Amino acid sequence: MKITRDAIGRLADAGDPRFKRVMTSLIGHLHAFVEDVDLTEEEWMTAIQFLTDTGKSCTGRRQEFILLSDTLGVSMLVVMLAQARASRGGLKGATEATVQGPFFWEGAPEKPLGADISNGVEGEPALYRGRITDAKGRPIAGALIDVWSVDGGGLYDMQTGEEMRARARFRSAADGAYSFWSIRPKHYPVPTDGPVGRMLRAMGRHAYRPAHVHFMVKAKGHAPLVTHVFDSKSKYLDSDAVFGVRDSLIADFRKHKAGKAPDGRVMAKPYYTVAFDIRLA
Amino acid sequence: MKITRDAIGRLADAGDPRFKRVMTSLIGHLHAFVEDVDLTEEEWMTAIQFLTDTGKSCTGRRQEFILLSDTLGVSMLVVMLAQARASRGGLKGATEATVQGPFFWEGAPEKPLGADISNGVEGEPALYRGRITDAKGRPIAGALIDVWSVDGGGLYDMQTGEEMRARARFRSAADGAYSFWSIRPKHYPVPTDGPVGRMLRAMGRHAYRPAHVHFMVKAKGHAPLVTHVFDSKSKYLDSDAVFGVRDSLIADFRKHKAGKAPDGRVMAKPYYTVAFDIRLA
Repeated sequence: MKITRDAIGRLADAGDPRFKRVMTSLIGHLHAFVEDVDLTEEEWMTAIQFLTDTGKSCTGRRQEFILLSDTLGVSMLVVMLAQARASRGGLKGATEATVQGPFFWEGAPEKPLGADISNGVEGEPALYRGRITDAKGRPIAGALIDVWSVDGGGLYDMQTGEEMRARARFRSAADGAYSFWSIRPKHYPVPTDGPVGRMLRAMGRHAYRPAHVHFMVKAKGHAPLVTHVFDSKSKYLDSDAVFGVRDSLIADFRKHKAGKAPDGRVMAKPYYTVAFDIRLA
Repeated sequence: MKITRDAIGRLADAGDPRFKRVMTSLIGHLHAFVEDVDLTEEEWMTAIQFLTDTGKSCTGRRQEFILLSDTLGVSMLVVMLAQARASRGGLKGATEATVQGPFFWEGAPEKPLGADISNGVEGEPALYRGRITDAKGRPIAGALIDVWSVDGGGLYDMQTGEEMRARARFRSAADGAYSFWSIRPKHYPVPTDGPVGRMLRAMGRHAYRPAHVHFMVKAKGHAPLVTHVFDSKSKYLDSDAVFGVRDSLIADFRKHKAGKAPDGRVMAKPYYTVAFDIRLA
């Protein structure tokens, strides 16, 4: 329509060519959406009120617009586009990336490889092991590995207190290996007491994420990677509320009887082992 | 992309078919925009922060998301679609509608036709006259007419104090006629001290609306109409910050020397007359 051309035309004097390009596309798609559904004035006002509520719901501890982006699949799309772009730029062969989520804790203290990071949280013990390599499988020594997850009840330490639990930072060994003890995480819901929760209910959707452990891995000369390992037995693998599941990131939690674990630790109760190798581009 | 189909597919159990249709289109267009511009993670975070700031800027007296919608041409598009829909439904022939804006004051007291509503505001006097008719030109008696405008300095009464000025409500006469004295309004900027102001500056755009007087007209048996009359000599007619100008709504402010005005009032200084007829569908 003419008004769409007019609105785009008004960008003629935009200083930054990239901003101009982004806003041109945004205005075109926004108008096309409104026209496509023949949006009514009442629906428009509902949208205005929803966006306002979403902004008002954001606090230092909560980012409802990121949650909106997550639950509409936009955050994951942006992650996938970034990895595809890096790949086209020659950074190929990396483990698939997924969303970072809001629970990363900058500056976790470094722990020795093999440490138990559960710090007393509820949950069945699990030994996580793997290797950090480059795209060709060559080991990367000294890679910085941040890991974090919910506890066995589905809560992050940030949601339950001030102490770090089921969260730590490691450096990969000379052969690229890493290992640590934590718990087997549980599926959990994204926050549903705000505008996004109302939207999910209107959509007839559940709010759950399948069980996973977050990894952020950085090494000199390689592209940083933010990803998860998902529990192959978890509920909601086929319907992650934030669309973060990639088949290549699903791993088995192998159950073992009490006794001597592969790293020599003697376990008084049953435990799991998880193998998850990570390739950096 | 698959993630777009996944996100849309997650609406399978939405209860309200219209909500499902709107969200299907929204997700499709939103993903297409992100993919089209290959949105980076940094740009995505800028957008999240912008939307959050926009929500935080909304108060009881300010609606920054409506301003965002206005300045992207979305509000006017919604107005045009509503009028086109009404027209397809048989409500044809009305005066063109435009945006209501945030300065309507519900429940202004009714004044007698011919009254001076300027209430002492700065500005050159102007006599507004016209007829309220149906689409075939037949007079509508007793139509409820709300009018409001900025003063001659470009400010609404709501921005300067608690008293109604350059704002009133009338009833059309038996022959559909209305008339009142007010001032000749000035062009003025939308608020620029918030996120939308930053966006307009990045776009290289000015923030001005051309001079206009708002009309809201309601009559039994007719579709209500929200519109403006624009001053044909105003700056910014070709670049209204909110895309509200329609050619059919532009009228001449005819200047007259001091003396007896057409309604018999004796004016001690020069004044203007404005003719603006309004058709209701």
